[in-house]
Amino acid sequence: MPIVKVIELVGTSKVGWEDAARNAVKEAGKTVRNIVGVEIVGMTAKVEGGEISEYRADVKVAFLVEGRD
Amino acid sequence: MPIVKVIELVGTSKVGWEDAARNAVKEAGKTVRNIVGVEIVGMTAKVEGGEISEYRADVKVAFLVEGRD
Amino acid sequence: MPIVKVIELVGTSKVGWEDAARNAVKEAGKTVRNIVGVEIVGMTAKVEGGEISEYRADVKVAFLVEGRD
Amino acid sequence: MPIVKVIELVGTSKVGWEDAARNAVKEAGKTVRNIVGVEIVGMTAKVEGGEISEYRADVKVAFLVEGRD
Amino acid sequence: MPIVKVIELVGTSKVGWEDAARNAVKEAGKTVRNIVGVEIVGMTAKVEGGEISEYRADVKVAFLVEGRD
Amino acid sequence: MPIVKVIELVGTSKVGWEDAARNAVKEAGKTVRNIVGVEIVGMTAKVEGGEISEYRADVKVAFLVEGRD
Amino acid sequence: MPIVKVIELVGTSKVGWEDAARNAVKEAGKTVRNIVGVEIVGMTAKVEGGEISEYRADVKVAFLVEGRD
Amino acid sequence: MPIVKVIELVGTSKVGWEDAARNAVKEAGKTVRNIVGVEIVGMTAKVEGGEISEYRADVKVAFLVEGRD
Amino acid sequence: MPIVKVIELVGTSKVGWEDAARNAVKEAGKTVRNIVGVEIVGMTAKVEGGEISEYRADVKVAFLVEGRD
Amino acid sequence: MPIVKVIELVGTSKVGWEDAARNAVKEAGKTVRNIVGVEIVGMTAKVEGGEISEYRADVKVAFLVEGRD
Amino acid sequence: MPIVKVIELVGTSKVGWEDAARNAVKEAGKTVRNIVGVEIVGMTAKVEGGEISEYRADVKVAFLVEGRD
Amino acid sequence: MPIVKVIELVGTSKVGWEDAARNAVKEAGKTVRNIVGVEIVGMTAKVEGGEISEYRADVKVAFLVEGRD
Repeated sequence: MPIVKVIELVGTSKVGWEDAARNAVKEAGKTVRNIVGVEIVGMTAKVEGGEISEYRADVKVAFLVEGRD
Repeated sequence: MPIVKVIELVGTSKVGWEDAARNAVKEAGKTVRNIVGVEIVGMTAKVEGGEISEYRADVKVAFLVEGRD
Repeated sequence: MPIVKVIELVGTSKVGWEDAARNAVKEAGKTVRNIVGVEIVGMTAKVEGGEISEYRADVKVAFLVEGRD
Repeated sequence: MPIVKVIELVGTSKVGWEDAARNAVKEAGKTVRNIVGVEIVGMTAKVEGGEISEYRADVKVAFLVEGRD
Repeated sequence: MPIVKVIELVGTSKVGWEDAARNAVKEAGKTVRNIVGVEIVGMTAKVEGGEISEYRADVKVAFLVEGRD
Repeated sequence: MPIVKVIELVGTSKVGWEDAARNAVKEAGKTVRNIVGVEIVGMTAKVEGGEISEYRADVKVAFLVEGRD
Repeated sequence: MPIVKVIELVGTSKVGWEDAARNAVKEAGKTVRNIVGVEIVGMTAKVEGGEISEYRADVKVAFLVEGRD
Repeated sequence: MPIVKVIELVGTSKVGWEDAARNAVKEAGKTVRNIVGVEIVGMTAKVEGGEISEYRADVKVAFLVEGRD
Repeated sequence: MPIVKVIELVGTSKVGWEDAARNAVKEAGKTVRNIVGVEIVGMTAKVEGGEISEYRADVKVAFLVEGRD
Repeated sequence: MPIVKVIELVGTSKVGWEDAARNAVKEAGKTVRNIVGVEIVGMTAKVEGGEISEYRADVKVAFLVEGRD
Repeated sequence: MPIVKVIELVGTSKVGWEDAARNAVKEAGKTVRNIVGVEIVGMTAKVEGGEISEYRADVKVAFLVEGRD
Repeated sequence: MPIVKVIELVGTSKVGWEDAARNAVKEAGKTVRNIVGVEIVGMTAKVEGGEISEYRADVKVAFLVEGRD
């Protein structure tokens, strides 16, 4: 049977939370193949000088585990 | 007394989660009148080829129930 | 030791939830100094005429408390 | 086998939350038969001029679905 | 050191949830001495003929445990 | 864009919780087309004479809403 | 854009939880203007001599922040 | 008014979680009369040698308290 | 099959929360045999004169139920 | 001191959720040694043609990390 | 009736989480009178060079509001 | 953009929960570089002979992922 592994990442962005989540998927794709889904589980940001300086999306990334038979 | 009904929908978008939530409201508006509010209760996405291919916003849509007296 | 205070605000926007959260930080910055972070804890919206008329981001804003020694 | 459907409503009252929940059940009973139970899942209120002007009970109403064989 | 035990009960009432919680405390007091507090953790009701027939308050009752030295 | 509606049901069974969830899907399929998924959100049972007499699976059933353009 | 601040209070009453929540709103109104809403987030009580001696409603009170432009 | 007491147990089984929950009810029935319901609140298992060696169902068992008038 | 019962206690201490949890286990051990585990589910404290005067650890204590065959 | 690592997997099955959880443990055992426990944290299923076509158990698998001194 | 206000703080310490919580109470006491209780709602830490460099206890501090009649 | 990975560990100690969390960070540091933070998400303990024999802190450890460009 196929099996899915779920890892937790925090993606960052200078633009916004949606972009931070996309960055997390992009970064995960550099070391993990067969990503099938992502879920946002938290949204925080660092604030400096009264402005948001870094958006952070806490995400769970799910990927198919292959070739384990 | 007025009464509000709450339904749960999953809106989708090729663009992002905010757009997916807006789509859910738009679709709900085709069959339900008097929508008064929406709440995002989950944000997931389908990933294909290392890129997000479909954003999904799990939303609760609240609408006034009319003419029940 | 430094101490951080956390307050809860609801920011609003005509544009979207990310913008509503940014507005909450901006408004908080008018009365509070040394904001260090923000966390989105809820996303709702008011709907009128089938369209979202006001986005609302429920946020927790954290700031350093100074000069208490 | 019997099956139960659960819907979410927000009942309102000028008197209090218990009354708002009772109103939700009463209103639900106008369109749904065979209600078997109710659960309060949230209690909020609108405040105007320093006084609560409308109590709101967020409830889940469960009813038996009949005649589906 | 004093120690507190916490038990979970479901009190019932024909009148309302506040009364159901009071009944739970009253009943608990028949077998347990030194009750110090109560917390409502759930509110449900049985509905019959479109009317609430029995209110149920799920409560946690805390009491001091005595004489164990 | 496609849109998914999520409804909450309580399926029952004399056999077990997995069967109760299957029954909920089967019953939902009698009135709803295009069911795509189900999630178990609660598992309770009625007990009589010291034996479980009815298994109850609280489920969320998701289905595609069609033909709304 | 308007901004809402949310504070947490515990109102008390000799009568019941609904009254305790009303008291929290009343007390908050003495120092805060423009309260728009309240949410009950917890209900506990102190018990003495087998009777509830003080009802406590943990509430979140939301108010509009004015004149910050 | 009738009152229900809720206790928490962990039932075990060599077969599966449903069986572990049934065992919890069966064991509870040896010392407690008038059990009316059970709820599964957690499912874990001990693993040995790569195989599940003991299924554990964390359950809440509710029973009517009699003869307290 | 072995069965585990879980009870909820609040241990107290003048020293700290870890000590309060240890006290809860110690006190539980005076009336319950075969305790196998403990879980901290809440940490509060009473404050007097600006200092913590009593630490309180809300714990769940699990023990094996013996000799019920 | 021994240390345990916890990973999240989604096991699948054509038969049921208990089997899906067992499959997750079995698959995890192909790459991870010294698995000590598993916890079910979610149960969903894919539905096709009105029937459940794939059961999915979201599990947390715990294993001892060895030889790190 | 007396009313309690609840504020959220993050206390820090070089020593540990219990000490961080105590520091939060101590700092709060510099500007707030009549603190009656504290609850730990989160425990995090900053890690530098493989060692915890700053313990952070997220706490809720409750204090009596005086002189508002 | 920098990316953070979050893993879940259970640290153990003979002394207490704070020490168990520190051990989890220490152990994680043997195989993972650039740990930036830790969060305690659960505290349990094994009890033997009426005494806590092993403290267990369930923690989430966050570390910067380097050199992935």
